[in-house]
Parts: sequence; C-alpha cells; structure tokens
Amino acid sequence: MSRYDIAIIGTGPAGISAAITATIRNKRIVLIGSEPHSSKMLKAGRILNYPGLPNITGEDFASAMDRHLSSMDIRIEKCKVAMIYSMGDYFALQTSNEFIEASSVILATGVVTGKTIPGEEEYLGKGVSYCATCDAALYKGKEVAVIGYTKKEEAEADFLTEYAKKVIYLPMYSSDTDLNDQVTVIREKPVSIQGDQFVTALQTDKGAYEVDGVFVLRDSIAPSNLVPGLETDGGHVRVNRLLETNIPGLFACGDITGRPYQYVKAAGEGNVAALSAVEWLGNKNGKN
Amino acid sequence: MSRYDIAIIGTGPAGISAAITATIRNKRIVLIGSEPHSSKMLKAGRILNYPGLPNITGEDFASAMDRHLSSMDIRIEKCKVAMIYSMGDYFALQTSNEFIEASSVILATGVVTGKTIPGEEEYLGKGVSYCATCDAALYKGKEVAVIGYTKKEEAEADFLTEYAKKVIYLPMYSSDTDLNDQVTVIREKPVSIQGDQFVTALQTDKGAYEVDGVFVLRDSIAPSNLVPGLETDGGHVRVNRLLETNIPGLFACGDITGRPYQYVKAAGEGNVAALSAVEWLGNKNGKN
Repeated sequence: MSRYDIAIIGTGPAGISAAITATIRNKRIVLIGSEPHSSKMLKAGRILNYPGLPNITGEDFASAMDRHLSSMDIRIEKCKVAMIYSMGDYFALQTSNEFIEASSVILATGVVTGKTIPGEEEYLGKGVSYCATCDAALYKGKEVAVIGYTKKEEAEADFLTEYAKKVIYLPMYSSDTDLNDQVTVIREKPVSIQGDQFVTALQTDKGAYEVDGVFVLRDSIAPSNLVPGLETDGGHVRVNRLLETNIPGLFACGDITGRPYQYVKAAGEGNVAALSAVEWLGNKNGKN
Repeated sequence: MSRYDIAIIGTGPAGISAAITATIRNKRIVLIGSEPHSSKMLKAGRILNYPGLPNITGEDFASAMDRHLSSMDIRIEKCKVAMIYSMGDYFALQTSNEFIEASSVILATGVVTGKTIPGEEEYLGKGVSYCATCDAALYKGKEVAVIGYTKKEEAEADFLTEYAKKVIYLPMYSSDTDLNDQVTVIREKPVSIQGDQFVTALQTDKGAYEVDGVFVLRDSIAPSNLVPGLETDGGHVRVNRLLETNIPGLFACGDITGRPYQYVKAAGEGNVAALSAVEWLGNKNGKN
C-alpha cells in the first residue's frame, strides 16, 4: 500500500476546495467521501451568497463542484472513515474498505448534528463501533444491534448477518426498510448503551435488548471520536487561523471548525487547510 | 447624511463576498472601491482553484462577481477612503468625495505591496496626505509633490493645480503621463520625506525638492495608516477566527489579514466578516 501526501475526508465544499488546491500544488491526495457529495449539499435550497454563482440550487452547486473535480481528474474514494490513528510519522485511516496511509490529513466532515447516545463514547471500541465492514468479523456468532441514521446503512446491517448470529436494526428515519430476512427491524428510539467491561445491552424507549455489540452508523462521526486526542470545543475541532489542529499534520476545515456554516466559508477554509498541509509536508521533508 | 450599517472597503473577492452576505442579511451597506474591481483581479491570469469556477480567467472571474452584484442590485461607490476614524458609536470615513458614516466597517482593501517611504508615516497628517481631493485646500498657494503609483492618480495632480502654486508629479509607472501644463513631471525615485514640525522637502535619488506637502497616492494604504490604533502584524491586520480586529465594530478580511493570498480564502473571509458584523450590530442594538 502506498502512502498519500494528504488524505482529505469529506466531500462538501471544504473537502473539495482542499482537494483542488492540493492537486494544483502537485500533492498526491485521496479525497474520501461516502457519496459523490455531501447529502447536505444536495438538500440545500438556493444558495445566494457563494460569490460568482448567484442564486444557485444545491443540486446545481453540487454539479459545479463535480465538474471542477472532473476537469482536474480528481475522483472521490467512496468509503467511510471510522477512525484515524496518528502513527507519529504518518496517519492510518481505518475505512470501510481498507487501511489508508497518509502523511497528513485534512478533516472536512462537516458538523455533526445530534447528540451521541449515552454510553456510546464510553464503550467505543468495547462493543460500540462506527463501521460494520471494519468490525463485523469480531462479532462472529454474536448478537448485535445496528442503529442506522440513513437508508444506505442498511447494506451494513445486511452484511453483518454474514457473521453475527442475530442482527437487530433500528432505523432512525421514517422511510421503509429493505433488509434481508435475517435482520430484525425494530422501530424504537435508542436511549442508552449499557455494559460492564464490554457492551451487554441496548436500552430503547420501549425495551432492552441483550447484545454484544452496537453499530452506530451516522453520516458523520463526532471529531473527537474519529481522531483520538483531537482537541474540540463544543463539538467543533479547535483550529487556528492556519486551520491547524492540536495534532501536527492534521488540519480541519469547513463546518467542523465552527460557525458560520456557510459554503464559501467552508471553501475558503479548504483552500487554507490545503496550503497549510502543503507547507507542513515541505517542512517535514526538509527536516528528514 | 444618513448612516450605513456596514461600510465595506474594497472590491476584490473579500469585499464583494461581504457585501453579498450583508445584503442578504438585510443590512444597509455601502461597498466602496476605487474601480469596478480590484485591478489585481483583472490582471490575474487563470484562476484554477476557486471551487465551482474551474480554470477561469481573471477577467471572467471579475465578470462573474459583477453579475452577482448586479443580480442583487449592489452597486459600487467609486471613491477612495483616505482615513477611517472610530468615533465611539460609529465610524467616519474620509473619502475623496465626502465623509461617510457607518456603524461598522469591514476592511477588505487587499495587501499593500511595497514599503512606505521613509518619513511617510512620521509626517502623515503633517504634510503627508493620501488624498488630494480631501486635502487640496490646505495647500493653497503652496508647493506640493505628488507621488502617483498608478496612471489614474494623474487626475488628482491636475486637481491640485487649482490650489497649489506649484505641483510636481513623480510617476511610479513607466507609461506616458497626460497631465495639465501646470504640473511638472519628474521621473525620479522618492527616497525620503523630510521635515521639521511639518514636511519641508522630498528627497529623490537625483535631488531634493522643497515642498510643503507630499501626496502619496497608492492603490491601497497601509492599514495602520488608514485606521489610527489598528493592530497590525507584519503589514497585515491582526484578526481572530471571527475576523474581528482590536477595534470593536471593525472587521477585516481577505489578503489584508495575511497569507495565503487566494481568491476563495478571501471570499470565505468576506462571508465570515459580514456575519460577524451583523452579529455585532445586533448585540449593539440590543444593548441600546
């Protein structure tokens, strides 16, 4: 496996802007996102204040971003990052497909709306997982619950039935589910994750389920859960004006760094984060 | 004279972005620039990394900005700000046309390249002026030097002949000058501005000229000279992540806040500065 110069996580305006600028600066990048574009972008109504693209729909804006990426042969690696480990000299990104190595990382995963479930952070890595494809094998013959925040998580639940003895699925959306026969759908609201050393049960508003693991599958993961040791401030990653975080080589941009949640602010920060990463790589290589 | 909510100074991507967002937030703004667009924008070659406008020429980019402004009925007040005074409850902007009052100010005048002339800062207001139309009347019957950095300053020198007894003009560009008969053109490089209490002479690389005043007419004025008391750092205005300066109600964005000098970074900061100004106005009015 070869190592990238910069791994950019997130395909909203911040991540796309970072990818464009880093590519112009001849860095070997990987742009990682779960979809061609952040679902938020496609859901936006009209965007009035992205200078140069007046009164544009979210869909047209997403297309404009797409065209820009295509024109520069930047493709999106469609996977989800479950955890980022700082290995000293580089970063290891655990994704749903594989481990990805990169010398530096730009976090552009957007703001995580909604609270974590009580017990979620406590049992993270002890029965709580953010990635079914990463951790399914650990639950061979066991019982697991999957909390899916979007319909596309259903594939993860299906996949888990190849290992787990029992899979219950709690959809956090109202549309119909389309899962295989071995998945039990339960329309209840998770209240807490309980356990001792490891997870033992999922408590809902209507009952309790004895499980060995709980997969919490959201569009984005709270940054402090994604990167161990990352300093945050009220759910946002703490950055300076150069978009540096407290972890050397790790940068953040866009909504994840705080308000205002605006496309052009995000795009501007993506640009700055990319140039800061480029400079950081230059200094690092100069020192070696 | 009515007071604006926000005066935005500068018509590059930062100022334009601030104007768009402030207008959407229903603020009464004035967007002040010396030209339809910053000359830097028009001179740019191709811009590769403004997300959504791939591989665009500086001229097309300027047109896109123009169209965005026009679509929102935002017009540019074509004048030059020579000085900004914080009056406590509001700001007074001395322009080439008149005094403009605004409750808050967003500085987006770009980075000032080139050094000041030795003596320039020392004698500012004591014979050194950045605005001929503002201060011409002070030099009735006197002798003045005009240092013009762009051809459009020639009109200022012409105007000065209506008051001053003698006007010498030092063009800082190589193209031909087109001035009235009363202006003496001297192709020499200014070395220092000398004086006692007030300016007495302009020293050049080839000689010395006894003058009562020196008009230094650049595209932009160093921020610390534009706003008395403004904290700067190596020629850049010191700002925090909200683009606040050390002066309450005064914000800065774009190249003036420091590197990287990039269009999308400037546009992003314009957006944030506008929203910070909007919030500041809200808090201010809430307190009254």
